[in-house]
Amino acid sequence: MGLIVQKYGGTSVANIERIRNVAQRIIKYYQAGNDMVVVVSAMAGVTDHLIRMANQITENPNPRELDVLMATGEQTTVALLAIMLEDMGYPSVSLLGYQAEIITNPAYGRARIIEIHAERIRELLRQRKIVTVAGFQGCDEKGNITTLGRGGSDTSAVALAAALDADVCEIYTDVDGIYTTDPNICKKARKLKKISYEEMLEAASLGAKVLQIRAVEFAKKYNVPIHVRSSFSEEEGSMVVREDKDMERFVVTAVTYDKNEARITLTRVPDRPGIASKIFTPIAEEGILVDMIIQNTRQGGLTDLTFTVPKTDFKRAMAIEEEVARAIGAENVMGDEHIAKVSVIGVGMRSHTGVAVTMFSALARENINIMMISTSEIKISCVIEEKYTELAVHVLHDAFGLERISR
Amino acid sequence: MGLIVQKYGGTSVANIERIRNVAQRIIKYYQAGNDMVVVVSAMAGVTDHLIRMANQITENPNPRELDVLMATGEQTTVALLAIMLEDMGYPSVSLLGYQAEIITNPAYGRARIIEIHAERIRELLRQRKIVTVAGFQGCDEKGNITTLGRGGSDTSAVALAAALDADVCEIYTDVDGIYTTDPNICKKARKLKKISYEEMLEAASLGAKVLQIRAVEFAKKYNVPIHVRSSFSEEEGSMVVREDKDMERFVVTAVTYDKNEARITLTRVPDRPGIASKIFTPIAEEGILVDMIIQNTRQGGLTDLTFTVPKTDFKRAMAIEEEVARAIGAENVMGDEHIAKVSVIGVGMRSHTGVAVTMFSALARENINIMMISTSEIKISCVIEEKYTELAVHVLHDAFGLERISR
Repeated sequence: MGLIVQKYGGTSVANIERIRNVAQRIIKYYQAGNDMVVVVSAMAGVTDHLIRMANQITENPNPRELDVLMATGEQTTVALLAIMLEDMGYPSVSLLGYQAEIITNPAYGRARIIEIHAERIRELLRQRKIVTVAGFQGCDEKGNITTLGRGGSDTSAVALAAALDADVCEIYTDVDGIYTTDPNICKKARKLKKISYEEMLEAASLGAKVLQIRAVEFAKKYNVPIHVRSSFSEEEGSMVVREDKDMERFVVTAVTYDKNEARITLTRVPDRPGIASKIFTPIAEEGILVDMIIQNTRQGGLTDLTFTVPKTDFKRAMAIEEEVARAIGAENVMGDEHIAKVSVIGVGMRSHTGVAVTMFSALARENINIMMISTSEIKISCVIEEKYTELAVHVLHDAFGLERISR
Repeated sequence: MGLIVQKYGGTSVANIERIRNVAQRIIKYYQAGNDMVVVVSAMAGVTDHLIRMANQITENPNPRELDVLMATGEQTTVALLAIMLEDMGYPSVSLLGYQAEIITNPAYGRARIIEIHAERIRELLRQRKIVTVAGFQGCDEKGNITTLGRGGSDTSAVALAAALDADVCEIYTDVDGIYTTDPNICKKARKLKKISYEEMLEAASLGAKVLQIRAVEFAKKYNVPIHVRSSFSEEEGSMVVREDKDMERFVVTAVTYDKNEARITLTRVPDRPGIASKIFTPIAEEGILVDMIIQNTRQGGLTDLTFTVPKTDFKRAMAIEEEVARAIGAENVMGDEHIAKVSVIGVGMRSHTGVAVTMFSALARENINIMMISTSEIKISCVIEEKYTELAVHVLHDAFGLERISR
């Protein structure tokens, strides 16, 4: 018995039948004596429909008003779920963002939670109500509706769990946990019983789409245990928790890949102070996110500079850099859209040596050429030719023995 | 130049193209220097869709949660309208019920407005914003969402006009004003330039569906001039205003009809004190609304009692009364579903005599039998056979010279 925050994503509440299943699951926990707070997303497809309506008017809807529109999606789900629970005979109260007093900054469309006044929820829990909360939304200090950005319901749930000091925050999705790698590619992939916040953050930023990065950051900051699991089965999923000794036994925990980046290289750039700023400022001004950057010094005061950008921004970035190259006197601009980034992640790296060597040799044995390398304390990423992605995932999964992992 | 509150109904905002037309109309008034507050309903069909979703779960959804669900309809429209206005280059801010501080009692689904704190709207108007407000919704003192019942957006608009001391409240619908009678039945029907609150109240309760009764009551109480007009034309509509001398020149202003009632008669009822209570209490307990009641005393301590109920409740009411008749020793219960009520309305009745005589003789000339009569200070209603409805409307319209009315 304890206080449980559950979050159900769009596919879990896609229609009335699924909302009924969700309600039954909630009731099971409630009947066991737990206090229940349930966060829901918009029904699958609703958010896209709302955006399409706004785009029928304009490509650039007013951000404040777009948030008012978007907030109806979660409002619909939370009301339907409360109606369902009440109809099944369980006392339930729905709260919208402003009613749950989820206070955010006024950055419409990508607001950040500043604080949650959880007293109203606590009072409802004392009355043994099942509290259902509209995810993805909050309000600023003036009472304007704000939304937290795509996937923001994860963040709503974790923030509520932190504010209420919940025992666990269960995130229900359409996958049943976090795997050592993508099971669609590698049949040997194993579900992890637990993964550290740090590893999850790296995995999320490296292409794993299970949890929103900000939700994990929030959980880490307030030490909220997250349980990622499927709403379509009873199986235990994966726990995202604080790092413990046990985790260090394994050098590497997960292999991820990302095919959404492209590579741009400027050759024979005159190597003067301020040159990097000239190359990256115009890209940043266009709102293009640069991921990896590598600079090789050549002889004679010249340097080659390579970086990656999202594939969707590739053409714009190339056009910008061709102008930059002319302005700064670089020799050439080369682009490559057919790349992928494969990464190995694990807190065990901190205490084990030779991880990079194992990774590089494993790739080399298959004649996979490494174009770029980037490392952090707990991950190593290599850019390779896109066509080798699946092969690389297999050999790295094997090389680090992930099919035998037990945690 | 002044302060104008406009209200657009569901058909006026049924799709993006119509919302664009509405925005253009608003801008025309705004550019002329007026302060604009605009109340919108849910897009046509949306409210029914939301009810259907709730009814997929249960026939009796929790009232609080149903209001949370229903409120999304107007929220969607108000956001889209504000997005449209902003995109056209006009500063606009949308407000939901709680943001406009429309405070109601907590009677979910049929809440009544207690007060409106209009300071926020006034401040926005001072900044020359076009304020768009979600109709039909408010919040109770605890911040729970409430709705005002079907057609409640009319009430929202009139209440806001009263709170802001607006110069006029324009109600845009799919008809272009208030007519002396239904133009679909009587080609001679004329649009009224103005009609008094009292007449409008009688007309609304006698079957005219242009304005919600509570909106008219509100307008009367706070003396808000209502302009009923069409969003599909530029033509002037009809003003609903305080009674003036001019109005008394005409004996009768409008002829209405209502085919939605049925008649029930109990014959030879023992005429004892408390007998009426025995007849009507079980009907009231079932939530059935009784409209007209007529009692004829017979000789020998017996009486015949006739009353009307909505046709949709006729079968239930008959079943109840058959039991009642047995219990109180009445002779018989007779029902008739094929009746209609025709009425003439006009504040001029107060100062003119012989209105009833004119009405009865006009019907008699066509051999239309009058089954029941009911009068108020400014209206006379007769129940007749349903098949004579259209004929009765024609002869009454002629008898009171309504095709020549000029007001």
